[in-house]
Amino acid sequence: MTAVESLPRLIVRRTVEWADTDASGHHHHGAILRWVESAETELLTSLGLSGLFGRIPRVHYDVDYRSRLWFGQEVDVEIAIVHVGDRSVRYEFEVRAGEVVAATGSLVITMASPDSPKAEPWPDDVRTALAGIR
Amino acid sequence: MTAVESLPRLIVRRTVEWADTDASGHHHHGAILRWVESAETELLTSLGLSGLFGRIPRVHYDVDYRSRLWFGQEVDVEIAIVHVGDRSVRYEFEVRAGEVVAATGSLVITMASPDSPKAEPWPDDVRTALAGIR
Amino acid sequence: MTAVESLPRLIVRRTVEWADTDASGHHHHGAILRWVESAETELLTSLGLSGLFGRIPRVHYDVDYRSRLWFGQEVDVEIAIVHVGDRSVRYEFEVRAGEVVAATGSLVITMASPDSPKAEPWPDDVRTALAGIR
Amino acid sequence: MTAVESLPRLIVRRTVEWADTDASGHHHHGAILRWVESAETELLTSLGLSGLFGRIPRVHYDVDYRSRLWFGQEVDVEIAIVHVGDRSVRYEFEVRAGEVVAATGSLVITMASPDSPKAEPWPDDVRTALAGIR
Repeated sequence: MTAVESLPRLIVRRTVEWADTDASGHHHHGAILRWVESAETELLTSLGLSGLFGRIPRVHYDVDYRSRLWFGQEVDVEIAIVHVGDRSVRYEFEVRAGEVVAATGSLVITMASPDSPKAEPWPDDVRTALAGIR
Repeated sequence: MTAVESLPRLIVRRTVEWADTDASGHHHHGAILRWVESAETELLTSLGLSGLFGRIPRVHYDVDYRSRLWFGQEVDVEIAIVHVGDRSVRYEFEVRAGEVVAATGSLVITMASPDSPKAEPWPDDVRTALAGIR
Repeated sequence: MTAVESLPRLIVRRTVEWADTDASGHHHHGAILRWVESAETELLTSLGLSGLFGRIPRVHYDVDYRSRLWFGQEVDVEIAIVHVGDRSVRYEFEVRAGEVVAATGSLVITMASPDSPKAEPWPDDVRTALAGIR
Repeated sequence: MTAVESLPRLIVRRTVEWADTDASGHHHHGAILRWVESAETELLTSLGLSGLFGRIPRVHYDVDYRSRLWFGQEVDVEIAIVHVGDRSVRYEFEVRAGEVVAATGSLVITMASPDSPKAEPWPDDVRTALAGIR
């Protein structure tokens, strides 16, 4: 993950639930996407920004898968804000089981009301919070 | 989407189910990932290769989101094989509601038994089928 | 399923997607719940009532599982309204793969705005439509 | 919940994730089913029986929904074994947000290999563990 030391980051722990597996025997790749969103939720909540959900559509998501995860394993999902743009935020994430990296990737969100076709600039207080400035 | 006319491609239609929505009011982005997999399933099935599932872990997935999708909408999910490597396949996909493009992206898979840490070369008959050669 | 011939009923077809399976090798039981909702969606839509979604919380769901379903199978999901109460509707459903019954059960919904703690009576036109009277 | 004091029981805590919501604004009812399975997983794991997963198909599930759950809420999922039969186990569960009960219900599982059409009796050591006898 890119190191941008001053920007907010956080690790959450989740378990590979039975419903996260598929008939391959290991995790289904959709589980990564949900865990990343869980980590984002805790990160934004820690910044007082959980109210943004519903107005921050995802505009980009990419992920590289490196290892399988198995039922019952605990996974650490690290997420970091790596760029705060005028109308967007870029996160990078890493999903690990112990020392083994299972997935890395990035997620870009923007701000837009559900009924608006266009992204809007972050309000000043939101932008300040996203940048980790208190 | 990249046009590689001679390689296999296919369109499947799915509906935005209630369970595909979230509290934003529109689709959750995980729905795209599942629809892409549904299209991949039908594509591989059409090539006689549905038996590969369980031995074709995903190694990369990226997606750009361009429009919201709403409960009850019908979506067309187009998937195309754009590259057949020695040990991998790259797909590109596009998800549309009518003329509106909701998402585009790519997916890379490889071949590996669930208990193997390493990718294996495609067997000759699989590779031929993936390349659309009958 | 209970036969109430005059009340609305409908069958939808869905496929056992890869994401519907778990590490047992067959379908995860949560897939049944989603398919039942898909059938309910098409039933209410056929009655001109798709706009109810979001205001019809589920109050009861029960299901008996009788057979496993496997990746790629087509399933027929039959749903029938079997009782229209003052403030509720009871559905019965059956999920089949060919002649094999995989699950049967019932679902009860009521009508309540997301911000209301209490069920409300069906408006007259909704109740008439639910009863299959045109 | 039925009180059978000597039988195993356990409470797990989960969060209402964004992906657990739907366009009603509150939780989708499929989330309850997954949380119950998470609680079952921890219960069986605490009994040394997590290896049963994949060989314990669900045969019955019923649930009554009593309150809505909202994004970000923490939920306590209590599960208890209430009956150990020759070839089955019956659990009862309750999902609460603080003091508010959101759902109650029961789940019945049996034991059967994925390739067997019939339930098998629990092995003696499994039955003893399920009964909470150490």
